[in-house]
Amino acid sequence: MRVLVAGASGYAGALAARLVQSHSQLELAAVTSRSDAGRRLSELYPHHRVDMVLEELDLGRHADVDAAIVAYPHGAASGLVAALRAQNVRVIDLSADFRLRDQAVYEEWYVPHAAPELLAEAVYGLPELHRDAIAQANLVANPGCFPTAALLALAPLARGGLIAGVVVDAKTGVSGAGRAATDTTHFVSVTENILPYKVGGHRHMPEMEQGIALLGSPVPVTFIPHLVPVDQGELTSCYVTPSSPLTQAELDALYAEAYADEPFVEVVGGAPGTHDVRGTNLCRIHVHAEERTGRVLVFAAIDNLWKGTSSQAIQNLNLMFGLPETMGIEP
Amino acid sequence: MRVLVAGASGYAGALAARLVQSHSQLELAAVTSRSDAGRRLSELYPHHRVDMVLEELDLGRHADVDAAIVAYPHGAASGLVAALRAQNVRVIDLSADFRLRDQAVYEEWYVPHAAPELLAEAVYGLPELHRDAIAQANLVANPGCFPTAALLALAPLARGGLIAGVVVDAKTGVSGAGRAATDTTHFVSVTENILPYKVGGHRHMPEMEQGIALLGSPVPVTFIPHLVPVDQGELTSCYVTPSSPLTQAELDALYAEAYADEPFVEVVGGAPGTHDVRGTNLCRIHVHAEERTGRVLVFAAIDNLWKGTSSQAIQNLNLMFGLPETMGIEP
Amino acid sequence: MRVLVAGASGYAGALAARLVQSHSQLELAAVTSRSDAGRRLSELYPHHRVDMVLEELDLGRHADVDAAIVAYPHGAASGLVAALRAQNVRVIDLSADFRLRDQAVYEEWYVPHAAPELLAEAVYGLPELHRDAIAQANLVANPGCFPTAALLALAPLARGGLIAGVVVDAKTGVSGAGRAATDTTHFVSVTENILPYKVGGHRHMPEMEQGIALLGSPVPVTFIPHLVPVDQGELTSCYVTPSSPLTQAELDALYAEAYADEPFVEVVGGAPGTHDVRGTNLCRIHVHAEERTGRVLVFAAIDNLWKGTSSQAIQNLNLMFGLPETMGIEP
Amino acid sequence: MRVLVAGASGYAGALAARLVQSHSQLELAAVTSRSDAGRRLSELYPHHRVDMVLEELDLGRHADVDAAIVAYPHGAASGLVAALRAQNVRVIDLSADFRLRDQAVYEEWYVPHAAPELLAEAVYGLPELHRDAIAQANLVANPGCFPTAALLALAPLARGGLIAGVVVDAKTGVSGAGRAATDTTHFVSVTENILPYKVGGHRHMPEMEQGIALLGSPVPVTFIPHLVPVDQGELTSCYVTPSSPLTQAELDALYAEAYADEPFVEVVGGAPGTHDVRGTNLCRIHVHAEERTGRVLVFAAIDNLWKGTSSQAIQNLNLMFGLPETMGIEP
Repeated sequence: MRVLVAGASGYAGALAARLVQSHSQLELAAVTSRSDAGRRLSELYPHHRVDMVLEELDLGRHADVDAAIVAYPHGAASGLVAALRAQNVRVIDLSADFRLRDQAVYEEWYVPHAAPELLAEAVYGLPELHRDAIAQANLVANPGCFPTAALLALAPLARGGLIAGVVVDAKTGVSGAGRAATDTTHFVSVTENILPYKVGGHRHMPEMEQGIALLGSPVPVTFIPHLVPVDQGELTSCYVTPSSPLTQAELDALYAEAYADEPFVEVVGGAPGTHDVRGTNLCRIHVHAEERTGRVLVFAAIDNLWKGTSSQAIQNLNLMFGLPETMGIEP
Repeated sequence: MRVLVAGASGYAGALAARLVQSHSQLELAAVTSRSDAGRRLSELYPHHRVDMVLEELDLGRHADVDAAIVAYPHGAASGLVAALRAQNVRVIDLSADFRLRDQAVYEEWYVPHAAPELLAEAVYGLPELHRDAIAQANLVANPGCFPTAALLALAPLARGGLIAGVVVDAKTGVSGAGRAATDTTHFVSVTENILPYKVGGHRHMPEMEQGIALLGSPVPVTFIPHLVPVDQGELTSCYVTPSSPLTQAELDALYAEAYADEPFVEVVGGAPGTHDVRGTNLCRIHVHAEERTGRVLVFAAIDNLWKGTSSQAIQNLNLMFGLPETMGIEP
Repeated sequence: MRVLVAGASGYAGALAARLVQSHSQLELAAVTSRSDAGRRLSELYPHHRVDMVLEELDLGRHADVDAAIVAYPHGAASGLVAALRAQNVRVIDLSADFRLRDQAVYEEWYVPHAAPELLAEAVYGLPELHRDAIAQANLVANPGCFPTAALLALAPLARGGLIAGVVVDAKTGVSGAGRAATDTTHFVSVTENILPYKVGGHRHMPEMEQGIALLGSPVPVTFIPHLVPVDQGELTSCYVTPSSPLTQAELDALYAEAYADEPFVEVVGGAPGTHDVRGTNLCRIHVHAEERTGRVLVFAAIDNLWKGTSSQAIQNLNLMFGLPETMGIEP
Repeated sequence: MRVLVAGASGYAGALAARLVQSHSQLELAAVTSRSDAGRRLSELYPHHRVDMVLEELDLGRHADVDAAIVAYPHGAASGLVAALRAQNVRVIDLSADFRLRDQAVYEEWYVPHAAPELLAEAVYGLPELHRDAIAQANLVANPGCFPTAALLALAPLARGGLIAGVVVDAKTGVSGAGRAATDTTHFVSVTENILPYKVGGHRHMPEMEQGIALLGSPVPVTFIPHLVPVDQGELTSCYVTPSSPLTQAELDALYAEAYADEPFVEVVGGAPGTHDVRGTNLCRIHVHAEERTGRVLVFAAIDNLWKGTSSQAIQNLNLMFGLPETMGIEP
């Protein structure tokens, strides 16, 4: 299968290009970039060792592929996605443009939508929850990194309508902020710092609410991310008020059953650290019944650039093309 | 005033010794250590520049002081504290031994208590909440680092009985784990990691519950700390379910009034980072009314070794000896 | 003494402003910034706690001071320095504009010089080497951070004409690169990286060569800096081929004598770490005679923002105004 | 091929086990540990995902393999190596026990040698320099991490007898110090620190001297390592005084020719960073002729745990068993 990566000069696109290149059944057809066309990807990211020249996107040439991974900023992606779909290219969109089913919600948190007509056909690309739909999809909206971890943490509870209230406190590494050099991503700003951000509302919140509502637990979510001095890694700590009391044994059974056959989800007996999943497509989950308070605590660790973004895109590609789901991203 | 620091070879004791030494009205009488007697403190901690030899504790000689800061492990401190009190030395105990008023609660979370007869006279050393009692006290139990931040964050709400439920999600640097070299504190374990710990129950939880109950909000607290790759710094993110709805304006007024005259509390309009308070006795607080959910969010940042431990001990010493409260620890 | 800090929105200027503000005999008259005029310095750097508004520079108002610290970029500083000198303000210039005595060398490494007529009166502001001249100076060129450490490491040897050849391998934290957010200072670029830079020639090399030549050892210097994941800190490892053999005893005597009375130089028996001097005006030095090779190894650790820049400026101000040299920057 | 990893609970052994497990032509027969027998390797190192129980070594059972990787401490390895060789097992020894040809030199820097009779048959396992001998060897002494980088950096010069003098200034991450929790490896000791160590003599120095002497340049080497806040990564900066002048063009030709066909050596035109080679078996080299001084500067970056230790062991295994050299450790 020939795959285009559009927007390969950012962290997500570059990693996607590397994973496509090293995949035995995928061929990296081209890498494009608006800001860095003409440079080699291996010059920007020596460690990925993708020795291809970044090109200006040219739909005349570049649409001659089986699939495209679009790594454009929110708002900018939908136009390209529509153009690729018009040429019958199957698309995985890493942006938020097709994640929210309700156009109004999207436009409240992002920008006016450039291709709302495609919202109906887009499938939310969290394989553990929507595997069958992804396999049939022509347009997959790759989830946000925080929703990926939070929804995997909460899905077994949400499915049973067991969530009466939830606080999601997330901690993330700096790569989630992208390649742009800003005051926020300056080493001196990050080191020795622990910083909550977007306290007034982060755009991944409605995506989480949509996800758990679809599963059966429509509740408002408190979601606060924190920046810590880490490169790649993300931990979501979920504090759930259950709709009815749950014992540790019940929780253990619920999570074991939910994820028994999932190659990329590890349910573990102790607290998961992000180091345990760095550079993998894995999500590592621990669930705890706090008897004193009646709360259920769920911790989920992922690599925000891998399972949170680019390796999950490969997992989706594998599903779409009938390949073994773990191919090229084996744990 | 002549001050002994007992247990000066650990992080907390060493910093306390430095702060006493540089204080214009305090004199560092001696520094003692069980594990490192005979070595210079400046050899262990060059950056503190306390060029004194660590001695074996000898109550015959060392009790001839006005005050002592005891930096012994939990359980080991109470014996020494009792001996010092018997010789009429005023004591600030950095351990947990005299923080919990209820001996049974202490013994549930720690060890059998070696000097329970002193519990009644011990004063909880959080100056912003117990200033007058500290000024009169002969035995001050210096608070834990997490309770310091959490109680300062929650006090304005707790006082009004406004807390119906609360989750405290804390993130802390490694110095809080102390000087012992362990698998947990190894650089390779910490870097690129975000790790929840003591998910089943951390000993600072009952201290937090006691603190907010005394202020007027007796509720069970969910408290989960997380280790992040930071040296000194601690952030507590508090998710409060208020007993009645609160607006941002009401919260702003409540916090402004509570801390208007506090030299070491900064109530700020944006999210506080731990870098903002590193190496200071300050606590920086931000409060946010989340309309969608009705929750109140409070974030408090401190330096766990300073306001969370050693500089708070100096603040308490200043109060006990009638010195200006900020002397030697000016922001 | 009233002091202006011009260019206070960068790391060096901001720290200088903080040190002036907390100095008991200096008064911070104003802080200026071209890029951030109108903002509070405490908003940019909460941890410095200088709650003043950054102003556009206005020589009509701002030259009414006893001294100015100019923290402008290389090339941009000389114009302002000349204007301040014309109004009889004593100046400490943190840029390189007046460090090199030879205009041609300056222009080879930097830009055309805007005020060469002032080169003759400028004094190189390394107090341990030029104390008397600084005390009389009206224009002090504050040294570069690498030359500060390298010259203090090498001075005892250079004075005796003992250096036949020298390699200076330096390692530095990121704050030395300044506040500008660039690919180089992005957290993701820095973490888990060790990177030599300016292999073809760094501008601090001619400054080092000038310094040791003036002391008596005119030799070409190999100087290579390396960026490591540290905020503040700089270590120079100097590998000297001596002009005649030197024993450890001779070196120990030479360095002890050179620095016996220096309040800010610590000659120590073991390898110095940058952590030992973080946030201080100290330089910590270790010298070692390597018998096998005949080489002399000298290691010097400083904080690049403190002794390497801003606290050294205060040390110079103290000398210029006849104040105790350590005032406001006590170790 | 069935492979035993003895001493798999340390960093080097654990990574070797992971690489053997994921290698398509090798089978991980057993993992042993003296300190952690009975525990699962996946419990100690979740991210390696080797779900095998660490066993007490039992030569009766464990010697039934084609090869063994011995990851024991220096001094402790030679006994086991001798026992394995007695049972005809081909061995790769990660310790220093068989690296130095001269027993007296070994014993000067390490301990009395327990199996000197095997020194003659041991081959120094740096494949780029000794490929043919390794292919025939039954006992391979895997090189030290610093010598690996230094010898690859210097080999093209050393072969021509072009080195008249050399200083090797190395910077390394903390994993090189091993898994033992010590004051030195404590996060608080490492962060914000840059620290030279073993200034009086590091044991990798004689290994470097042996290596370049064998190639044709017998000169004493100055070697100083520095610890920086990095997990995995090592940079050696080599400052060479050439025996005759060398131009950049000559150096470029020399290095291009030396490494043209090497799959794991990248000669690059700009300074290499350790991040570029993290988690790979690559060595990235840059050479620079400094005209002003006549010195030749060579920088080499490796991952100390990979090319510096465990993946290099796999490269050696591939050679010994006639497998493609890059199998299982493809860049």
